[in-house]
Amino acid sequence: MITSPNGPQPAGFSDVRAANLAVVLRFVRENAPCSRADIAASTGLNKATVSSLVADLIDRRLLREVGQTENRVGRPATMLVLDGSPYAAIGIEVNADRITAVAVDLKGERLLDWRRAFPGGTSSESQAVAAVAGVARRAVNRMAKEGRQVLGLAVAVPGLVDADGSVRAAPSLGWRDVNLCADLTKALRDPGFPVLADNDANLAALAERRFGPYGNVGDLVFLTGEAGVGAGVIMDGRLRRGARGHSGEIGHIEIDAAGPPCHCGRRGCLEAMAGIGAILSRIAPGAPPAEFEPEIEEVARRARDGDPEVLALLEEVGRALGKGVAIIASLLDPEVVILGGYYVPLAPWLVPVAEEEVRRRAPAPGGCRLEVSTLGHGAAALGGAARVVDSVDSGRLPVPAGG
Amino acid sequence: MITSPNGPQPAGFSDVRAANLAVVLRFVRENAPCSRADIAASTGLNKATVSSLVADLIDRRLLREVGQTENRVGRPATMLVLDGSPYAAIGIEVNADRITAVAVDLKGERLLDWRRAFPGGTSSESQAVAAVAGVARRAVNRMAKEGRQVLGLAVAVPGLVDADGSVRAAPSLGWRDVNLCADLTKALRDPGFPVLADNDANLAALAERRFGPYGNVGDLVFLTGEAGVGAGVIMDGRLRRGARGHSGEIGHIEIDAAGPPCHCGRRGCLEAMAGIGAILSRIAPGAPPAEFEPEIEEVARRARDGDPEVLALLEEVGRALGKGVAIIASLLDPEVVILGGYYVPLAPWLVPVAEEEVRRRAPAPGGCRLEVSTLGHGAAALGGAARVVDSVDSGRLPVPAGG
Repeated sequence: MITSPNGPQPAGFSDVRAANLAVVLRFVRENAPCSRADIAASTGLNKATVSSLVADLIDRRLLREVGQTENRVGRPATMLVLDGSPYAAIGIEVNADRITAVAVDLKGERLLDWRRAFPGGTSSESQAVAAVAGVARRAVNRMAKEGRQVLGLAVAVPGLVDADGSVRAAPSLGWRDVNLCADLTKALRDPGFPVLADNDANLAALAERRFGPYGNVGDLVFLTGEAGVGAGVIMDGRLRRGARGHSGEIGHIEIDAAGPPCHCGRRGCLEAMAGIGAILSRIAPGAPPAEFEPEIEEVARRARDGDPEVLALLEEVGRALGKGVAIIASLLDPEVVILGGYYVPLAPWLVPVAEEEVRRRAPAPGGCRLEVSTLGHGAAALGGAARVVDSVDSGRLPVPAGG
Repeated sequence: MITSPNGPQPAGFSDVRAANLAVVLRFVRENAPCSRADIAASTGLNKATVSSLVADLIDRRLLREVGQTENRVGRPATMLVLDGSPYAAIGIEVNADRITAVAVDLKGERLLDWRRAFPGGTSSESQAVAAVAGVARRAVNRMAKEGRQVLGLAVAVPGLVDADGSVRAAPSLGWRDVNLCADLTKALRDPGFPVLADNDANLAALAERRFGPYGNVGDLVFLTGEAGVGAGVIMDGRLRRGARGHSGEIGHIEIDAAGPPCHCGRRGCLEAMAGIGAILSRIAPGAPPAEFEPEIEEVARRARDGDPEVLALLEEVGRALGKGVAIIASLLDPEVVILGGYYVPLAPWLVPVAEEEVRRRAPAPGGCRLEVSTLGHGAAALGGAARVVDSVDSGRLPVPAGG
């Protein structure tokens, strides 16, 4: 019997070699430096197979040798470590108030970290796509200048993204039925690497697993704190997207039938009660601000100063957020729910109230923890890069440009 | 790159042979009759390995040869089919009004199908465990008399079951912290096969995948219609249990803050608004009936006769149920939500109203379908048997008693 936390994972029926290449790559990622013999012993693959797989991975510049160790019984072994430095994975996040871009190499080293204000809430669809394409083009050029081969670009969108990457709707950007991947591929002139789009919460959840402190947490949910609210659902160690790719759409679950009206036409949705857009519009009614950050800093400052109006608002928001988290806890039983985006600076006021609400509504004591993201505003962009790296680790292996 | 609907599934690091045995077994399950060459061609395993794996599976009486086919180019091949008839998997379901037991062989042939009324709602914990043990003992004896080796017994419990199988709470049975597996193992005098406990909705979801019409549906949710309401969550083809095994606890999600009081101490929980226990107590206030079936039949009869009181109640219940399903649809995006248990006879009145509510609240048009279980009241018991068969398909292979 195979025992793993996710249950047995038998090999698929199809490409055993690609799967085994990925097994070796992931083993070295987790155990480097290690020898070919270590890999054979731990994976159950025979030594000849391991040698052939390692040679292939070295050819692709995914692994490299780092000399010998004598720190063991028997003859010294040549050790292997992850290489991957000739490659770059790019992630871009577009939101109501900004565009963020990051790039990492296959070891996760940050190669690029850009952020610019962008009035996503008031720009037209084509302006927004052009702005994303502009940032993408500059990021790709930068990587090319550094001699790195771009393996993929994934764009995080705050909205409903179909499994094929087309954007069904992104209300905070005013988008409806945008074929972002095709538009970007065209704008980048068929760049020769995959261009993907994904939901921002999904990608942020991937980032928390790969780059945050939750690498060993199999069941977690990431809650975005942007103009809207969305959830990225990881169960048994993988993103669970649902049948159409629309899982985690918690923003329009009814929290209070008598709550304030929501832009979706109903009342008391989580987004209308606890979305950052809703918080800002209650503090300063009128058009949403072009930049959220100074406004949220002002809310935090007033809370720190004990402003009763702001404290009452944040308590109300925390309670609604707690109701939302309690629904997640009941239905998904994650180990952790991570609050991201602008929830992070407001966490000192939101989290205690939300936790109390979750405790009150939990099906059993000792339920999920409520934590705050440490990845900052780039979480979803970083998740875009993580998705590209994940695809390499899963067997979509690059061929070096010169190879 | 490996393309499968669930993404690449690389081999685990541990027991490659056990995984490959399971790959071959599942291939034959899905493609029988087939030859060793077919298996090699489709799995990527080499022919010598396939021959050795098949010999092992024949020794274990999981496969058998069925003569040769000439219906192909080249020399005739010996064909393989699933055997597994010397084995039995037993599932038992305990509920507020009955105990159900089923057994199947590894091909899914029904060997036994028992149902008896049992006042689970008013029996003590030890009476209930003794009753389950009695049914289990008779089922095991029956299988032994037929010369079958029992591979496992799984008991479906309507409540919170920890990942290790201990029952944290089952309110409709009045259970709290029952170590059912240990109690049953003792009552069966260390029977030499695993004794498991699991949540009834989880097991019913497994049964729908293996024995119902949803074998190809990767994302589905089963909603129990018993004294309480619980959900079994399948995403990407597998049960997703959450961090502690408590996923799918939808019964105490608040549907209406002003709703009727719930036995949990809060108000307006889904269970208090749409549980079968709640429906019956509103039709005939007082102690819950010992048997639900005649009462539910009476409700359905009155609805068919156009009784306005019953029709109004069922509309209200359907609306609450629809709100619950809308939460599931938003958060999990399943392809299908399946209503089971006593929701089945009430479906003609509940489903249209619930569907309307789901449509009204869906994040995007064309969301999940609401369907009615075809497995009858034995769904969770059948799911217990399915769980045992699943464990064989995943590599926990039996050794025949005489082998």
